[in-house]
Amino acid sequence: MNSNRQGKQSVVFPSKPKILASAAIVGDLEGNGPIGKHFDIILEDDTWGEDSWEKAERKMYEQSVRLACNKCNIAPENLDCMVGGDILNQLISANFGARALKAPYLGMYSACATMTESMLVGTMMIDGEYASTVSVTACSHFSTAERQYRSPLELGGQRPPTAQRTVTGSGCAILVSNEYKPSVTNTDELYQSIEITGGTIGKVIDLGVKDANNLGAAMAPAAADTIEAHLNDFNRTVDDYDLIVTGDLGSLGSALLIDLCKDKNIDLKDKHIDCGNTVFCEAQKFDCGGSGGGCCAVTLCGYLLKRLEAGDINKMLFIATGVLLSPDTTLQGDTIPSIAHAVVLERSNS
Amino acid sequence: MNSNRQGKQSVVFPSKPKILASAAIVGDLEGNGPIGKHFDIILEDDTWGEDSWEKAERKMYEQSVRLACNKCNIAPENLDCMVGGDILNQLISANFGARALKAPYLGMYSACATMTESMLVGTMMIDGEYASTVSVTACSHFSTAERQYRSPLELGGQRPPTAQRTVTGSGCAILVSNEYKPSVTNTDELYQSIEITGGTIGKVIDLGVKDANNLGAAMAPAAADTIEAHLNDFNRTVDDYDLIVTGDLGSLGSALLIDLCKDKNIDLKDKHIDCGNTVFCEAQKFDCGGSGGGCCAVTLCGYLLKRLEAGDINKMLFIATGVLLSPDTTLQGDTIPSIAHAVVLERSNS
Repeated sequence: MNSNRQGKQSVVFPSKPKILASAAIVGDLEGNGPIGKHFDIILEDDTWGEDSWEKAERKMYEQSVRLACNKCNIAPENLDCMVGGDILNQLISANFGARALKAPYLGMYSACATMTESMLVGTMMIDGEYASTVSVTACSHFSTAERQYRSPLELGGQRPPTAQRTVTGSGCAILVSNEYKPSVTNTDELYQSIEITGGTIGKVIDLGVKDANNLGAAMAPAAADTIEAHLNDFNRTVDDYDLIVTGDLGSLGSALLIDLCKDKNIDLKDKHIDCGNTVFCEAQKFDCGGSGGGCCAVTLCGYLLKRLEAGDINKMLFIATGVLLSPDTTLQGDTIPSIAHAVVLERSNS
Repeated sequence: MNSNRQGKQSVVFPSKPKILASAAIVGDLEGNGPIGKHFDIILEDDTWGEDSWEKAERKMYEQSVRLACNKCNIAPENLDCMVGGDILNQLISANFGARALKAPYLGMYSACATMTESMLVGTMMIDGEYASTVSVTACSHFSTAERQYRSPLELGGQRPPTAQRTVTGSGCAILVSNEYKPSVTNTDELYQSIEITGGTIGKVIDLGVKDANNLGAAMAPAAADTIEAHLNDFNRTVDDYDLIVTGDLGSLGSALLIDLCKDKNIDLKDKHIDCGNTVFCEAQKFDCGGSGGGCCAVTLCGYLLKRLEAGDINKMLFIATGVLLSPDTTLQGDTIPSIAHAVVLERSNS
C-alpha cells in the first residue's frame, strides 16, 4: 500500500526516471574556477545586460531552462511541470522565470537545498505518472544574495574567514520517464543513461549554531543526519556509492561533516566531495568556498552529470544542503535550522 | 505511461487519498468573523505569549499541525512528510515549525496559493505511494505581513479601499491513503468521507497590474486561467461542482473573476465563494476582505471541510490564489505575476 516508501525518510522510484539533459549558466568567477570549461554559458558581466542584479538572476533562471529544453527539443511551454526555486525573498527569480516560460509551475524553497527538493518532487511526479517531462531548476546570484542576506556590496564590508561566496549561476535538469523518446536529431547533448532511483527527504536539524557567517557549520549536522537516515533506510554503506556529494558545506563544513559522520560510525573515506569546494578552488581565495542554491545546481548540471554519463562514476548520492534562517530570525536571536535532501543518481548499465 | 495526467495542466488521483482531519488556529478578528465558531483555537492576543509576531506565527504553524495530528492520534514526528509554507521571507514559520515537529519536510512557496500547492504535492505523495501520512499546512499573520510587505504597523499608514487584510491564522490538513485505518478511539473529530480526486497545476499569469495594494485584481486572471484549464482538462462544466472556492481574491477580485470567466464563456453562477469574503464580513470593514496564505487554509480546514463532511456540499473545486511579487520587484518597476493551483475535493459517497 505504501510500496514506494523506503524506511523512515526515504522513497524509491521503481520506474527509474531519467535525466535527459541539463544546462548550467554561471558568472565569470565560476567560469574561471576548476570546472569552468563544463558550463554552457559564462557571463562576462554579472548584470547580463539587465538593469539590476535581480533581473540578471531571473534571466539566468529562465535561460537555463530554455537551454536544457532546447537540448531535448522540448518547447518550455510544453513541459508538464516546472519545479524549482531560488534564495531570493518570495522566489522572484523562479517566479518571474516561470512567467516567461509559461508551463505549469510549482515553487520550492529549501534555501540552498532547493535543487534536491525539486528533484525529489519532480521525480515523484514522473515516477507516479503525473507528468512525463519536468524541469528542475535552482539558482543564486552573489550580488543579490549579498544585498538581501548581508550588506549592500557598496558598503565594502569585510568578510570573516568562515564566510562562503554565493555562487552566481543557475542549473536546470530535464527529468523524463524512462521510456521517453526524445524527438531530437542531434543526441550529442542528451544523457543516455542517468537514472534517479531513490531519495531521502530531510528533517530540519539545528545544533545551535548562531553565526550567520559560518553556514557550513550550521548545515553539516543536517547533511550528516540525512546521510545516516539514507544509509539506514536503504541498508547501504558508503561503499555502495562511488561519490557522496554535498551541496555547499564549503571547506570548514566538509571537515565538520566528516567528523560528525565518524561519530555516527560512518566513514566517508575518500568518497566525499562538496560542490562549494568544486566550483571554486583555494587559489581563488573565496574563504571557505562556494554556497547558494546555484552552487550545487550548476555543479550537478554542468559537471557531475557528465561524469556519470561518461561512466567515470556509476552511483552517486547527491545531497544539497540549506540553511532555513532569515535575516529576521538572526536579528530575533534564533539559532540556524538546516536541512539536507538527497537523491540517488545511477548509470543505467552500472 | 502517463496515466495520472489529465489534459495539459491537471492530474488525477485514482486511489482517492483522504483528508482524515484538519485544524485551524486564528486571531481574534477572524474569530469574531462569520465562521469564527468553527475554528479550533482563537487567539486573544496576536503575539500568543511570544516576544515577536514572527514567533507567534511560527507557533500557530506548529500548533495547527500538532492539533490536526492529535485528532488522528498520529505523533507529528511519525508523519511520513510535512508539506507546507508561509509568506514570510525564507518561509521561517514553516521552517521553524518543522524544526519543532521533527518529521521529514518539504517547504513550498506559492505565496497565498501555498495551501493548494502543498495539497497537490502531498496528494501525489500519497497517491503515488511515497507516503501514507502527510500534513499540509499554510499560515500567515497580519502583523508580520504588514511589517514585511508594507510598512511597520507603528507608522499607522492609511490603507486604500482596494486593500485586503492579511488573515492571522494557520490551517493544517492530514492526508492519508484511502485504506488508512486510524488508531483512534474517539472518531468524532475525524472526517470519514472527504477524498481528493484531482487537481490542476497553475501557470504564472500576469496581465500587467502594478498596484501592490490591489492584489485581488492581480490574482483574478490567474484564478480564471486555472478554472478554464481545469474545466477543459477534465471536460467538466461549472455544473459539475456544488461550490467553486477561490483563496483570497476579496470582493473586488471576485467581481473581476466573474467577469473574466464570462469572457471565457464560463458562468460561475451562484457557485462561487471566496475565502477572503468568507472569513471576514462587510460589517468588519476590512476593505476588500481577507488575504494571506492562512486565509484559504483556515477557511478550508476550519469550515469548508466540515461542510463537505456534513454533506452540505458534495463536490468542491478549491483554488488558492497567490501573487508572486516581492517588495523588491515592485521597487524595480515590475508588474505583478500571479498563480492559482486547484484541487478537487469530493464526498466519497456522493
